[in-house]
Amino acid sequence: MPAIDGVRLASAAAGVKYKDRTDLLFGELTPGTQVAGVFTRSLTASAPVERCRQALVSGGGLARGLVVNSGNANAFTGRVGDAAVDTCVSAAAELLDCPTEAVFTASTGVIGEPLPAERITDALAGLNDNLRAYAWPEAAAAIMTTDTFAKGATRTAEIGGTTVTINGIAKGSGMIAPDMATMLSFIFTDAALPAAVLQDLLAPAAERSFNSITVDSDTSTSDTVLLFATQRAGNAAVTDADDPALDDFKARLEDLMIDLAQQIVRDGEGASKLITVRVSGAEHDAAAKRIGLSIANSPLVKTAIAGEDANWGRIVMAVGKAGERADRDKLTITVGGHAVAELGSAVPGYDEAPVAAHMKDQEIEVAVDVGIGDGSAVVWTCDLTHGYITINADYRS
Amino acid sequence: MPAIDGVRLASAAAGVKYKDRTDLLFGELTPGTQVAGVFTRSLTASAPVERCRQALVSGGGLARGLVVNSGNANAFTGRVGDAAVDTCVSAAAELLDCPTEAVFTASTGVIGEPLPAERITDALAGLNDNLRAYAWPEAAAAIMTTDTFAKGATRTAEIGGTTVTINGIAKGSGMIAPDMATMLSFIFTDAALPAAVLQDLLAPAAERSFNSITVDSDTSTSDTVLLFATQRAGNAAVTDADDPALDDFKARLEDLMIDLAQQIVRDGEGASKLITVRVSGAEHDAAAKRIGLSIANSPLVKTAIAGEDANWGRIVMAVGKAGERADRDKLTITVGGHAVAELGSAVPGYDEAPVAAHMKDQEIEVAVDVGIGDGSAVVWTCDLTHGYITINADYRS
Repeated sequence: MPAIDGVRLASAAAGVKYKDRTDLLFGELTPGTQVAGVFTRSLTASAPVERCRQALVSGGGLARGLVVNSGNANAFTGRVGDAAVDTCVSAAAELLDCPTEAVFTASTGVIGEPLPAERITDALAGLNDNLRAYAWPEAAAAIMTTDTFAKGATRTAEIGGTTVTINGIAKGSGMIAPDMATMLSFIFTDAALPAAVLQDLLAPAAERSFNSITVDSDTSTSDTVLLFATQRAGNAAVTDADDPALDDFKARLEDLMIDLAQQIVRDGEGASKLITVRVSGAEHDAAAKRIGLSIANSPLVKTAIAGEDANWGRIVMAVGKAGERADRDKLTITVGGHAVAELGSAVPGYDEAPVAAHMKDQEIEVAVDVGIGDGSAVVWTCDLTHGYITINADYRS
Repeated sequence: MPAIDGVRLASAAAGVKYKDRTDLLFGELTPGTQVAGVFTRSLTASAPVERCRQALVSGGGLARGLVVNSGNANAFTGRVGDAAVDTCVSAAAELLDCPTEAVFTASTGVIGEPLPAERITDALAGLNDNLRAYAWPEAAAAIMTTDTFAKGATRTAEIGGTTVTINGIAKGSGMIAPDMATMLSFIFTDAALPAAVLQDLLAPAAERSFNSITVDSDTSTSDTVLLFATQRAGNAAVTDADDPALDDFKARLEDLMIDLAQQIVRDGEGASKLITVRVSGAEHDAAAKRIGLSIANSPLVKTAIAGEDANWGRIVMAVGKAGERADRDKLTITVGGHAVAELGSAVPGYDEAPVAAHMKDQEIEVAVDVGIGDGSAVVWTCDLTHGYITINADYRS
């Protein structure tokens, strides 16, 4: 991944919880950097999430620093948790010589245990001396929890003839469901775009990327996506997210976010397959998404795919339980592009062989048309395997 | 289980799908028997469910026969499925010399494959010659699919000084979630109660029993609960479900239905523990139930319990994702009666030892107070184990 002018990163093993691995990311953003964010919709959001929400408002969209730790989510930790955020943010603000509301923070890991803030503040000064422009792989590694690989992506885009770069890192492999997941993603661009425009670009792209994936239907207390723009690219000013000059940037940003979201699903706890669910013919797009998520969250669909069994009856079941309008007598299902059911029953003379062959692939495609209207959506998930049980039946201890 | 005056049952191995096991239940109900039913809320309900719904209306609440098969759900089978129901119901009506709308039917098993109706009709005449009053264990066994044990319960109740009996059988161990599950239950009483009263008793009791359990959050196309009353007990006439004369019957019926519902959860696919989730302090009862189901359906909560890990952070997460009002700073969680969290963070000086000991029990109690109002609910579920994956990753083949 290339450098982004105005962004420097460093990571360290601060010993928050893990031993012998990095667990702390510190980022410095050049003065003038603008920021936007989307967060978990959990009603028990973590202390860092609450802090970021406040900082976006009180800081006027300006950002100078980023502090992220893994190993401890600092969620459901009460006033002690708020104080720990204060401690970390204040230390970073002092190093960066900026207001505390310009420092953004995220934590991921165990819920309900006090965050050892002093281990983080002890490590920050050293990190500040080691900030680098090309530290993306280390940064992506430092924010991992049960992830098995570090996640990053890069794109370039044109804004009014000027080339800008977008880099993103992400983490997440369990407690992953829309709105959003224990899913963190930090996206950086050198584009010159104000915070309000960034927010208008980020929210819909998140809806079609991070909010369209599910591993286990569980929603984290800590989900955070932040988009930082350092303004260094020198592109012409844009003041409205609907400006056609942003068309390419918009497409590349969404493409990068879908790439990161798919990386998360591929790394879903215990996952052996990436499953793409396309729903069409729904009453509207939101209905299509709910039907898609009903399929993608169904343990019976996910275990059938783990078993490489083309058990499309379970897909019918999942459509039925979604609670959205569907015409049973017009329902069409394809798996891997092969029609398995249409007009309310199995395809006449259905040949399971090509479908069974597709089920052995690592990437499974399920498409459902529910025969009502024009609504459509795409969601991504993974299969449900013994690996998920092994990881989660003994994670904390 | 005792006899119910006016009910005779028989079962057989009709070879619908399984070999060497019974898969067909035939029931004869004495003339004058009244019936009520509740069914899946799936929008892709099976042909037998659609038929029962129509029969309840067109038949005026009268029932003479019951035909249930396992091995094939006759769901998503289009017109062929409707025709198969016609064939079975007509054959039973002829044997019983009754209108077709007095025959109720249910099917459970694989979705999307045509039901071999002739195997059922071929077996019915023989079953009609073997109807018996004490065939409850065989009847409960004939409707099993992935169940590992047959499920039945009996109660007696007083109506105006007359003792009546209630017997119930049930099946279900996967695709179990509210509204309802591949969950079939047939309840029989000799009480003299009209269909309208039966319906008013059945629906709320189903809400607090079969609609308060979840194994895997998947809702079946086939869920059916039927309550038959043969009118033979000779109790005084009751015309209103709110009549105090029905208080005892109402309590015993709900108790029997909760008993059957808990048997289903204990037999949840791969289950090693029965989990009771009590939610209080919610905005209203429906909110409490949604919070309870959010906990009970969380794969992360269920795998933690499978691992005997008192990971209450995952309970906090599940409360947060339920989308119902909860006051993080008043949230209280107890596990096995031991306080683990209160007022928004871990209990001061929290001693995990007694909680860890409780986690080794086969029956786990989780109680959550969300600090908002007076709403409460109880739901039941089971843990999520390797057994669930093994059963469902290779069920159909």
